[in-house]
Amino acid sequence: MRATVFHGPGDVRFEEVPDPVIVDPGNAIVRVVAACVCGSDLWRYRGVTEAPTRPVRIGHEFVGVVEEVGADVTRVSPGDFVIAPFYDCDMTCANCRNGFSTSCLEIGWWGGSDHAGHPTDGGQGEYVRVPHADGSLTVVPGGMPDDALVPGLLSLSDVMLTGHHAAVSAGVRPGSTVAVVGDGAVGLSGVLAAARLGAERIVAMSRHEPRQALARAFGATDVLEQRGDEGIAAVKDLFDGIGPDAVLECVGTKESMDQALRSARPGGQVGFVGVPHGGPELPVRTMFSSNVGVRGGVAPVRNYVDELLPEVLSGAIDPGRVFDLTLPMPEVAEAYAAMDERRAIKSLLRP
Amino acid sequence: MRATVFHGPGDVRFEEVPDPVIVDPGNAIVRVVAACVCGSDLWRYRGVTEAPTRPVRIGHEFVGVVEEVGADVTRVSPGDFVIAPFYDCDMTCANCRNGFSTSCLEIGWWGGSDHAGHPTDGGQGEYVRVPHADGSLTVVPGGMPDDALVPGLLSLSDVMLTGHHAAVSAGVRPGSTVAVVGDGAVGLSGVLAAARLGAERIVAMSRHEPRQALARAFGATDVLEQRGDEGIAAVKDLFDGIGPDAVLECVGTKESMDQALRSARPGGQVGFVGVPHGGPELPVRTMFSSNVGVRGGVAPVRNYVDELLPEVLSGAIDPGRVFDLTLPMPEVAEAYAAMDERRAIKSLLRP
Repeated sequence: MRATVFHGPGDVRFEEVPDPVIVDPGNAIVRVVAACVCGSDLWRYRGVTEAPTRPVRIGHEFVGVVEEVGADVTRVSPGDFVIAPFYDCDMTCANCRNGFSTSCLEIGWWGGSDHAGHPTDGGQGEYVRVPHADGSLTVVPGGMPDDALVPGLLSLSDVMLTGHHAAVSAGVRPGSTVAVVGDGAVGLSGVLAAARLGAERIVAMSRHEPRQALARAFGATDVLEQRGDEGIAAVKDLFDGIGPDAVLECVGTKESMDQALRSARPGGQVGFVGVPHGGPELPVRTMFSSNVGVRGGVAPVRNYVDELLPEVLSGAIDPGRVFDLTLPMPEVAEAYAAMDERRAIKSLLRP
Repeated sequence: MRATVFHGPGDVRFEEVPDPVIVDPGNAIVRVVAACVCGSDLWRYRGVTEAPTRPVRIGHEFVGVVEEVGADVTRVSPGDFVIAPFYDCDMTCANCRNGFSTSCLEIGWWGGSDHAGHPTDGGQGEYVRVPHADGSLTVVPGGMPDDALVPGLLSLSDVMLTGHHAAVSAGVRPGSTVAVVGDGAVGLSGVLAAARLGAERIVAMSRHEPRQALARAFGATDVLEQRGDEGIAAVKDLFDGIGPDAVLECVGTKESMDQALRSARPGGQVGFVGVPHGGPELPVRTMFSSNVGVRGGVAPVRNYVDELLPEVLSGAIDPGRVFDLTLPMPEVAEAYAAMDERRAIKSLLRP
């Protein structure tokens, strides 16, 4: 088969790799119908994170059709249309049962290795071997969905539910006031998630017109272009001078976290999902004085998917709108470049 | 009158100071019936925090009888027995109304200055001028209480409600599993608070027999003497190998915060109330990986007092048991020394 391989900063290629085979009776093989590029892939693409010493498979978001299952798989059958989370998990361990499948005691990661130590495929390829198929995969009822629903279903692999995790971690509830730091696909998904959870007022921090428009379509009531100290002052001004109840930090830099922490009202909460880069340790004395809490991290999307899937299928929400570029998978290099150069919010790939 | 004055590390004296007078129509003068020494006073006493350049008044926890009120005071009258929080607040601003009176827009601090810039008395003295008397003071129904209730009422000035804030911030609810880091008066109060909130299992981390006994009396189901990595492993062992839902951090050092963060289960929550010392910035990448949240800070005790006061008055809870040494106020130096040398958990002072 063919799959995307990361060779080094700025260098991703769609090339021949070995076909996946079932190596454990709990595995399934999925034929990918759609995959995409994540903001976190860009950290590696840009050389911000250390490059691996040899070429590696990449991509961790995909939906597809089950081709084959191992002897122990009972919940998933060939022909099922499935959503994979951006990791694999058993959904039976104590952490999965607590709602935190990203801390599954048998977790594995795409383009790396599974818990048993076998190499795993990346999501940006034609096929993927899925460990813990019964735990990891969500079967979409009704079989192969209408093509227009595919982007929305793919968003449940990571981006939409990561935005949801930011909102949940920030304690967004009916009537909450919210600011969202970051206008990437995750930040925009965070806007939609906050609106869905009943936030009364949602401020999107964005200076890019197409992203501002999508933020408003997703439920943002206000858009602010200021950043840093000016952005914080502008946000506070909108909320009695003290700031909103909840701030969603969807970037992962020291600057974005600082802005989030200083924007929230005393006793408010920051929900963070941006993969932390640049060592942004949290200033505990600031948090102590203001009672602003910080909660979040790698989103346990597998625990959330059942809640949001019906709303995507019914059209009640359309999180797939974050994809503004669709390319054939062989053009994956352009999918990365377009996101890197901010010509695209998020790139969808079809094999 | 006489009051406690901090002259430098290890040097507190009970000496003559000017009598307080009403300087604003919202003030009251309270005759102190009982005051106490706080663990946070010890940071200064030990020279851990920088000493002020001149002698300053000290103490921030007291209960007493209202002697006089300003013309604008309506909720408090001479003769009322009142509980003061460890700060003064108006209880009308946006932050007070949100439940965070420690971020009152007109906050003042004992032994420093009020919001208007007037010097304030410390709590460890015979009389205290109370700014924002209507907001700050809680009137105990029934007038002068039975003497046996005074310690419990005094604990609502800070220590018990700071322990409560740790438990609330850590998200303790019925059925929660909890570990408490710190066996000082705040940590012990945190045990009682967690039990009161319905925690199913509460582990107190303590190696001091009298404190272990009080922790058990307050509701601890387990006591662990280990610290650091050993302590973390022992806590995790008690809870499916993954750790408890909630950890109360009641010390304020880098080590105690590290222990708290690494003890909580994935997706768990640390509630912290120890005044941070030693620059313990929070490791955001660890939090990201584990989804352990951190929330807490300076406890908005004025917002909590109405909830717990009836339980103290009825005897349903007896948080005053944290006071294991009572001294006449002129012996304040011994009250500090006994706590500093861990001969006492917490010292109560009677004028």
